Amino acid sequence: MSDVPSWPSAPSKTPTKTDLTRIHAWWRAANYLSVGQIYLKDNPLLRQPLQREHVKPRLLGHWGTTPGLNFLYAHANRAIAQRGLNAMYITGPGHGGPGLVASTYLEGTYSEVYPDVSEDETGMKRLFTQFSFPGGIPSHVAPETPGSIHEGGELGYALSHAYGAMFDNADQIAFTVVGDGEAESGPLAASWHSNKFVNPQHDGVVLPILHLNGYKIANPTVLARIGDEELGALMRGYGHNPLFFEGGFDDEDPLEIHKRFAAVLDDALDQIAAIKKQAAEDAAAGRETERPAWPMIVFRTPKGWTGPKEIDGQQTEGSWRSHQVPLANARDTDEHLADLDAWLRSYKPEELFDEDGKLVEDVAGIAPKGLQRMSANPSTNGGAVMKPLRLPDFRDYAVDVPGPGGSVSESTRVLGTWLREVVRDNPENFRIFGPDETASNRLQAVYEVTDKQWNAQLEDHDRSEHLARAGRVMEMLSEHQCQGWLEGYLLTGRHGMFSSYEAFIHIVDSMVNQHAKWLKVTNEIEWRQPIASLNYLLSSHVWRQDHNGFSHQDPGFIDHMVNKKAEIVRVYLPPDANTLLSTYDHCLRSKQYVNVVVAGKQPNPNWLTMDEAVVHCTRGLGIWEWAGTAVEGEDPDVVLACAGDIPTIEVLAAAKILREEIPDLRVRVINVVDLMRLQDDTEHPHGLSQRAFDGYFGEDTPVVFAYHGYPWLIHRLAYRHDRNSRIHVRGYKEEGTTTTPFDMLMRNDTDRYHLVMDVIDHVDGLGTRFAGLRQRMEDTRIRARAYAYQHGEDAPEIVTWQWGDGGDAEDGGLADTGGDNE
Amino acid sequence: MSDVPSWPSAPSKTPTKTDLTRIHAWWRAANYLSVGQIYLKDNPLLRQPLQREHVKPRLLGHWGTTPGLNFLYAHANRAIAQRGLNAMYITGPGHGGPGLVASTYLEGTYSEVYPDVSEDETGMKRLFTQFSFPGGIPSHVAPETPGSIHEGGELGYALSHAYGAMFDNADQIAFTVVGDGEAESGPLAASWHSNKFVNPQHDGVVLPILHLNGYKIANPTVLARIGDEELGALMRGYGHNPLFFEGGFDDEDPLEIHKRFAAVLDDALDQIAAIKKQAAEDAAAGRETERPAWPMIVFRTPKGWTGPKEIDGQQTEGSWRSHQVPLANARDTDEHLADLDAWLRSYKPEELFDEDGKLVEDVAGIAPKGLQRMSANPSTNGGAVMKPLRLPDFRDYAVDVPGPGGSVSESTRVLGTWLREVVRDNPENFRIFGPDETASNRLQAVYEVTDKQWNAQLEDHDRSEHLARAGRVMEMLSEHQCQGWLEGYLLTGRHGMFSSYEAFIHIVDSMVNQHAKWLKVTNEIEWRQPIASLNYLLSSHVWRQDHNGFSHQDPGFIDHMVNKKAEIVRVYLPPDANTLLSTYDHCLRSKQYVNVVVAGKQPNPNWLTMDEAVVHCTRGLGIWEWAGTAVEGEDPDVVLACAGDIPTIEVLAAAKILREEIPDLRVRVINVVDLMRLQDDTEHPHGLSQRAFDGYFGEDTPVVFAYHGYPWLIHRLAYRHDRNSRIHVRGYKEEGTTTTPFDMLMRNDTDRYHLVMDVIDHVDGLGTRFAGLRQRMEDTRIRARAYAYQHGEDAPEIVTWQWGDGGDAEDGGLADTGGDNE
Repeated sequence: MSDVPSWPSAPSKTPTKTDLTRIHAWWRAANYLSVGQIYLKDNPLLRQPLQREHVKPRLLGHWGTTPGLNFLYAHANRAIAQRGLNAMYITGPGHGGPGLVASTYLEGTYSEVYPDVSEDETGMKRLFTQFSFPGGIPSHVAPETPGSIHEGGELGYALSHAYGAMFDNADQIAFTVVGDGEAESGPLAASWHSNKFVNPQHDGVVLPILHLNGYKIANPTVLARIGDEELGALMRGYGHNPLFFEGGFDDEDPLEIHKRFAAVLDDALDQIAAIKKQAAEDAAAGRETERPAWPMIVFRTPKGWTGPKEIDGQQTEGSWRSHQVPLANARDTDEHLADLDAWLRSYKPEELFDEDGKLVEDVAGIAPKGLQRMSANPSTNGGAVMKPLRLPDFRDYAVDVPGPGGSVSESTRVLGTWLREVVRDNPENFRIFGPDETASNRLQAVYEVTDKQWNAQLEDHDRSEHLARAGRVMEMLSEHQCQGWLEGYLLTGRHGMFSSYEAFIHIVDSMVNQHAKWLKVTNEIEWRQPIASLNYLLSSHVWRQDHNGFSHQDPGFIDHMVNKKAEIVRVYLPPDANTLLSTYDHCLRSKQYVNVVVAGKQPNPNWLTMDEAVVHCTRGLGIWEWAGTAVEGEDPDVVLACAGDIPTIEVLAAAKILREEIPDLRVRVINVVDLMRLQDDTEHPHGLSQRAFDGYFGEDTPVVFAYHGYPWLIHRLAYRHDRNSRIHVRGYKEEGTTTTPFDMLMRNDTDRYHLVMDVIDHVDGLGTRFAGLRQRMEDTRIRARAYAYQHGEDAPEIVTWQWGDGGDAEDGGLADTGGDNE
Repeated sequence: MSDVPSWPSAPSKTPTKTDLTRIHAWWRAANYLSVGQIYLKDNPLLRQPLQREHVKPRLLGHWGTTPGLNFLYAHANRAIAQRGLNAMYITGPGHGGPGLVASTYLEGTYSEVYPDVSEDETGMKRLFTQFSFPGGIPSHVAPETPGSIHEGGELGYALSHAYGAMFDNADQIAFTVVGDGEAESGPLAASWHSNKFVNPQHDGVVLPILHLNGYKIANPTVLARIGDEELGALMRGYGHNPLFFEGGFDDEDPLEIHKRFAAVLDDALDQIAAIKKQAAEDAAAGRETERPAWPMIVFRTPKGWTGPKEIDGQQTEGSWRSHQVPLANARDTDEHLADLDAWLRSYKPEELFDEDGKLVEDVAGIAPKGLQRMSANPSTNGGAVMKPLRLPDFRDYAVDVPGPGGSVSESTRVLGTWLREVVRDNPENFRIFGPDETASNRLQAVYEVTDKQWNAQLEDHDRSEHLARAGRVMEMLSEHQCQGWLEGYLLTGRHGMFSSYEAFIHIVDSMVNQHAKWLKVTNEIEWRQPIASLNYLLSSHVWRQDHNGFSHQDPGFIDHMVNKKAEIVRVYLPPDANTLLSTYDHCLRSKQYVNVVVAGKQPNPNWLTMDEAVVHCTRGLGIWEWAGTAVEGEDPDVVLACAGDIPTIEVLAAAKILREEIPDLRVRVINVVDLMRLQDDTEHPHGLSQRAFDGYFGEDTPVVFAYHGYPWLIHRLAYRHDRNSRIHVRGYKEEGTTTTPFDMLMRNDTDRYHLVMDVIDHVDGLGTRFAGLRQRMEDTRIRARAYAYQHGEDAPEIVTWQWGDGGDAEDGGLADTGGDNE
């Protein structure tokens, strides 16, 4: 662990009246620009009387949260400049896009990355026009917004992202605004507990600011309606020291309001400085730092603050009615147009912007400069600060494979030995996230070089269980937190992976949607540099959750992901340990992808040597000549295809039966590692051309395909290639319970015997010739099930099955490997 | 609102030593049966010396949480019997399946529903053998468990389910055990706030019991490691009055432990009785009842309590090592076998079970009888107590349709008028759930007869905003809570619906997985009666989130759902208001389904009269003769198919262009309401036979299909029917931003002009004849985009487009209808 960087020690400085006047001016300017973005397409400085034609035809945006966001941004700026903080701003209520765009424009950053939107009247007009406009920018805080790492469309992830961003960024602070609407969501409610996973010495600081503006779209918010006593208890229960602020509900002088808030913010920042000072002292003395009660701020202000008090006789400021566009008819009625005019002029733009339309210097002076501007914080353009991982040669961790099936490994355990070295070689740049499942998924070799970071109470005996105040493994029983933390970590230029049970990764379906959208959009933004891929390792998968039962059996995350943009999504199903190593090395090197890797944790045969594995993974799919009976260059009678470790075993077992029972049948075995190769090359960059596909699968050859997940996905991927519906897919069809591993396959018709039956059914002429074999297969299945139901484990011929004759391997057989942990 | 039922007023009664001895005996019996289920397949009463062959070959199950669950069940039983409570038991740590099976067996319920598992030695042997055994029962609390409404596989939903179950069950209480592992999850962390949505007069009571046993699979839990002070603050912050209990960590006399816990439970139940008494008095006086601080219990006991203290020299009781099966080698080593023997005999089974193997009467006496047993609570077999909805005739709410496109409606607003009557006619039996979007999704007509239930602080002006202490609409900004509440409400025999933005329904992907699995399994359990379907209304859908931008655009929930079992899932895309009414009537009448209905909220043309709509919805798809140019009975040259309200408009617009430009082209227009009709009849009960499919779509006719969602889904559904890959699908291909509605279509090549181009491209011979038309279409698209980019709204020819010539309709045109709220 490296040295602890020093935290700025500048003491609080009570702002002077001049300071307060400038802050207020900045706030007015940001509010003015926010309203301008929502309403105006011309006359940006109101130098002409406001006319209907200056107003946009469609009024889109969210005003309600915006003035509060602007207020906080202005105050953060004062504090940053005064103390020399390294800060970023995370906007939970990201619908308030106009606010963040306004502040970053006032800081000059916006014009730096978008020179067209210059700091003058022309640029301001463009700033206004582009907002929520076709060909312009989105209405929310978005990848397009400088300084943002957090899309504000889907609510609930502000704190998770903030903590993820602060891990290993010990000298940084994230001002994190939590909307009281999003605070009702599950992920946000749990994410307050992130403070039990943050290390005061080695990680940065999250300052949560609960923006209690009282209303959602159409309702009050829960946290605004439980009283300060309960709310205070809640925040203390979450481990925080809450500081309360309320303003804007009466006629208090704005400068007084600013003065009061500056004091609250200084109080919070003083507490943080004290914590950081203590942490530095502890570090110097080689002591651990106990978890402090980190400050947080409850910021209670009116929704739509400074907007119209009343519209058409109904309360607007301080009501849900100001959530979006309060003056919906500004273009249509004289009253609303006049109201808009008065509202805009209430900010006195003529005092704020100079003749050219640039923010007057006196006001601009309150903001920090250069990279200290939150909109220019290098971490918020993570790819620009990303250091590549130092990756040990994965080939060194290869398992020995004397021949196909000639050895047995737990794939993820093997991967763990390589990940151990990745962890060792990349301190402060790589973390593993998981919901209490890192060891269950067999990655425990990493504990030889690191620990699980845990800043709640630590008991002595925990230390022998790899819990420590700092460590590279982050475990909380919340897939949402794991995902949010990892996203924040990646978005700020680091690397990581998320290991999860396959079934429960659906918990983050909606979060990964948003991350995939972020990646897709940033691919189109020139100044955004590529970040490291989001890497999943899905283990404890559907075929080996026989012991936990139906609730734990769901391979559908792959289906969910393949709807995302082809340039973002990669899905890999390595069939054994060496292919898993090769695959994961590729994933950790890649950028801007979501890589989904599914691999089992139980003992399975190894099929490929490392050299073979590298070739196979590079191709993404391949003919396993040794497994089939077809002659190279000739068309086979049937293709047996497989994707996934367990289906691969079943296909090989079926191939072995066919080889013995129908020796003249020309069988080709194809294994698919990279699922996207099944698509057409017009649909996915990894896709095969029709000619290449035919080269593998023949033109009209029947294909019996054993797939890891829901079988329909193969049809959806290969539909352009599947002339004459000759691909017959087996996979998980949502039949499961607590049973044996092989019974899981039988329940879903994906077992070796059924695959043989499928071959007989689909290859012309076999049906009559081999009716007896088909019947024998059916009988064998019945006997296999009967055995399992009687003995509670799979039949010996399943458990001891091996591809070869035993050969050199001491144990080429398969243990009955289900059900040994959660 | 009906009268408030009386709450049992029996005062607390301190248990005598005899009572405590009986409670302890019950607990020992439940623990014994739990251990027996995990380990034994024979010798159930240990009447022979324990041999290896009595032990199961695969040891599957979770011991760690089980003794705590059994302890609580025993104490709940005493309280129920003493006070006459109407109670159910919800098991958050549902992995503790053996415990719940044991308790329900001890109560006799298990043998009543499964007579084979009788209350004697033979039955006990069966009870043990079947557990986590092929052909037996799952390892978790499951649909198979009497008294359960909550599968314990995926964690986090215990409180949501409990509150959902208690709404409108004013005389009931749900003892709800929350695991400290699941308490880390997002949904659980937010669900504590459910107490702001429960009405003390009209709803039942949830008594949360936080089971703080300290460990997950491999880690301590957060809530066990923040100290009682923070934990107490957290619970008070959540609105509870926490009562702390700790026991089992030293050598305290078990009877003392029972005595202390009985006092804590009585304290909680006395507080509840007092709250209920106050509520009844308030109700009698016509007063509202303010939200009380409901009691909750923190129950801190060792993980694996009463299990082996130490195994192989490592602490087991009180450690994560007791999470699953502590003696993994009981069959393999003498030491473990002896440990198991000692463990089992420590419960003294010989004192607990009589000669036949039945629980001795003295102990059985502590439990309640008949329907008061939690395992026999009628609400937990919801279908058995379900009253059908009183449904007003939806035809009465039809909109007038003088001809296709002859009128314009907001479909969901029309639906709202019918739902208003459903609400009115079904007090206490129907609720609408939504994350702050009921009005946004245009269902506000319901507020004419009901309110939003809100038991946090209520301000005077809220009352005019339809907030009240009791009401049929439940809004919290958490899709998780909406889903969990609705599931709990349905599982206990009531009816409801969930209205959500389409994109964000992915937040509950994983929850609905589990509900679909529950339905699938209950279909196979004879004693479980069918419950009402889970009905989604997904509005604010992908094509009309042009204003909110990319984050709000995701139609993939349909894809997610169609992987579930065909007998469970229904997906409907009604194209207009009358078809939506007909569809929703069908959904609310149905049982055991998950119905996904996608319908827009913006003004759209109506196509079908109510009579036509009923026929169309009954068929699920249909040829719209009036829209095409093909002659009935003759094969068309091309089929233009559509599913979804917006694609329907585009297909009709394309058909109109084709009719004018290529009048001799025989075009058939097909609209699909019931998406499952596209499947083969071997795959889905609604599927079409090949012959029927060909009847609609021809055998080799090119089909240009405009679909609401991701286009690949149509290929996946229709793959068996799609000979020669002649179906060409357009839909959302993940291209979006903040723009105009029509630009959204153009970005995804799903606009009318592109559909015409597709027809030209795919119908033999058109390519050369109509190269000019094709070019004109391309030009028109470019002009449409240019207009939008210049004016910020769609071109006039889009906005005013109508199918007919105007006809009788006052306004058959389309307003530019995007972007008017969140």
